[in-house]
Amino acid sequence: MQIETLGPRTPEPAIMEYVLPVAQHNALITAAYRKRGYTQEESTLATKCCQMASWNGIKTHNGIKALHLDDSLGSGRRPDPGCVPGAAIEKIPGRFKAAQQWNAHRKLGQAVAFEAMETAMKLADEFGVGIVSVDNAFHYLWGGGYVMDAARKGYIAYTNCTAALAEVVPFGGKYPTLGTNPHSWGFPTVDTLGYPIVIDWATSTIAMGRVQQFVREGKQLPPQSAVDKDGNITTDPNKVYALLPFGAHKGYGMALIDELYSAYIGGSAPTLRCRPELAGKGEKICPTFFFQAIHPDALSAGHFAHGRTQKQNVQGVIDDILGHGNDKCMLPGQLEAEFAKRSAKHDGLLFTEAEIAEFTKIGAEIGIAIDATKLEKA
Amino acid sequence: MQIETLGPRTPEPAIMEYVLPVAQHNALITAAYRKRGYTQEESTLATKCCQMASWNGIKTHNGIKALHLDDSLGSGRRPDPGCVPGAAIEKIPGRFKAAQQWNAHRKLGQAVAFEAMETAMKLADEFGVGIVSVDNAFHYLWGGGYVMDAARKGYIAYTNCTAALAEVVPFGGKYPTLGTNPHSWGFPTVDTLGYPIVIDWATSTIAMGRVQQFVREGKQLPPQSAVDKDGNITTDPNKVYALLPFGAHKGYGMALIDELYSAYIGGSAPTLRCRPELAGKGEKICPTFFFQAIHPDALSAGHFAHGRTQKQNVQGVIDDILGHGNDKCMLPGQLEAEFAKRSAKHDGLLFTEAEIAEFTKIGAEIGIAIDATKLEKA
Repeated sequence: MQIETLGPRTPEPAIMEYVLPVAQHNALITAAYRKRGYTQEESTLATKCCQMASWNGIKTHNGIKALHLDDSLGSGRRPDPGCVPGAAIEKIPGRFKAAQQWNAHRKLGQAVAFEAMETAMKLADEFGVGIVSVDNAFHYLWGGGYVMDAARKGYIAYTNCTAALAEVVPFGGKYPTLGTNPHSWGFPTVDTLGYPIVIDWATSTIAMGRVQQFVREGKQLPPQSAVDKDGNITTDPNKVYALLPFGAHKGYGMALIDELYSAYIGGSAPTLRCRPELAGKGEKICPTFFFQAIHPDALSAGHFAHGRTQKQNVQGVIDDILGHGNDKCMLPGQLEAEFAKRSAKHDGLLFTEAEIAEFTKIGAEIGIAIDATKLEKA
Repeated sequence: MQIETLGPRTPEPAIMEYVLPVAQHNALITAAYRKRGYTQEESTLATKCCQMASWNGIKTHNGIKALHLDDSLGSGRRPDPGCVPGAAIEKIPGRFKAAQQWNAHRKLGQAVAFEAMETAMKLADEFGVGIVSVDNAFHYLWGGGYVMDAARKGYIAYTNCTAALAEVVPFGGKYPTLGTNPHSWGFPTVDTLGYPIVIDWATSTIAMGRVQQFVREGKQLPPQSAVDKDGNITTDPNKVYALLPFGAHKGYGMALIDELYSAYIGGSAPTLRCRPELAGKGEKICPTFFFQAIHPDALSAGHFAHGRTQKQNVQGVIDDILGHGNDKCMLPGQLEAEFAKRSAKHDGLLFTEAEIAEFTKIGAEIGIAIDATKLEKA
């Protein structure tokens, strides 16, 4: 079966990579956050997310991206920083036992997200399902990381958020009024597959970062992925003004879900999000987060074929899906797991020369030297 | 903006329709279910779902389809009927307060689904969120109906289920091992829009019923929608052996979600589902359902821009999405709402001549005459 559209993230081509030891990476990222004024705890949790992303081969959401986000939209944004070092989460008193509502007061996204997902898991332990909604959020970098972490701890986890900027045109429209609004689901399949199934993607056909990559490489975009300034579909990356949802009206619906959750939580107009220069007094410009955890026992009706356990049943279903000649199929999360094995084998985080150059720049800002010549090569 | 792929359900072309009064439709469908052995309560709830579907213009999931499903996969299937008239739901005792697990013992799907969604709403009233998982289910006809009903009652609702047959090839594979596995979300926007937003679709690019329609009409399929018996992509509807997920790996992930929920609930191998002739002793062949309701107050952090209420905030977000020249965009659920207005205007359910002929056949089975010449025309 040939697929003409862009497939999922594929492994990087076999180019030379450096092995950055985890301790060295973490010291660097933590120091960079500390220098920006974040507390030790915030910086440690921010670093944990970056480490997990790079360990699993997520090139688009690593420490380089995290610090760039903080500079452009976070504590570095002037006027009106989108992220406030040391901010405290306000837990709004509510009448619901399995649902919490938080005002993050623009606290660092990764720190908020780890705590929110932990809270959702605790609620799920008691109630079967738990949800945490977060208003006045910043950016949580990599949604897949939180559901992967929760899935490793045994839960069926889900998160969505509103992306920073409205870059996506609703189906049938011409102006970008939706974020690239991602959805992330994790399933606790470590015992059966060796890794959690993690379904994690944005609701645009491609990311804006990918468009820049196509410009650099002189390539045409895949069909149905972007529009020019007049709202006409284009495959010329130089003409791209806004992105299209994946899967026509279906992806549009999925992008809309994040905006609606956000609207119920407390988020305001998508086109004002992260755009303080456009927002008047009394406006709100922050993204929102939503987290959910389900205890797998809370789904089980306790009656599996052939007297299987729940885990054996999940294994049987996966075997059936990948059987019948479908052995070339991949499961979502498999590429990440394969990359993580390479990370483990080399006992460190694998970065390209260009990435190491970025880390070197970050190091220079804070007086930590990264000497590429001293790093092992993978 | 021109879209080359299949868009959402479009209004039927302006052909002559008959107005079947709701009472007459309901008497017919209820009698047909009663004749098959279903209880009065089951038959009434089955009819309610059919009525709602036709009222909202859902041509693919109406009373004709419901009775056909019962004949082919339900109480009429020999051997091993997939649906058992008068079966009782067994509520499995569990330790979780906001989650229930039911064994439907193959009870009629619509009756189970209405009760499950009601239960999820009651749980949401107390806990903020409630979930109900259903094992040994039949077919619930139209998932959009249950979330629409819950959204009209004020909840953010969600359901997924495993579709009867494995007709969809996983991304990168060649053999169908996934159902067309739908997802349905409803949002309580009646106060703001006049109708609930309902996002409701299968995870295949097209439905198998659509393929038959293309054969009849001598048309080619849209790209990336189906494969032939060798697993190669085809646009010739005569060569279709199996369907493809929408949106490549993203739609594949969404189809997989339903199979995984099912696996945790109690569903078995997808390729055995609804295929008693393939399933050995000790196997399970029924679909599963999952329902979730969230009380909108359980999402609210209570802090909306410009002192808006939550509802005003939702309105503001929707206005922004459909603003900026996007006035030609539609919201999911809008077409259904427009059809419902036509139904209300004509004070009945609107059916084509071919559909009325089907109802006439159903009537003949049970001794109820439908005289098309006596029906008003719309």
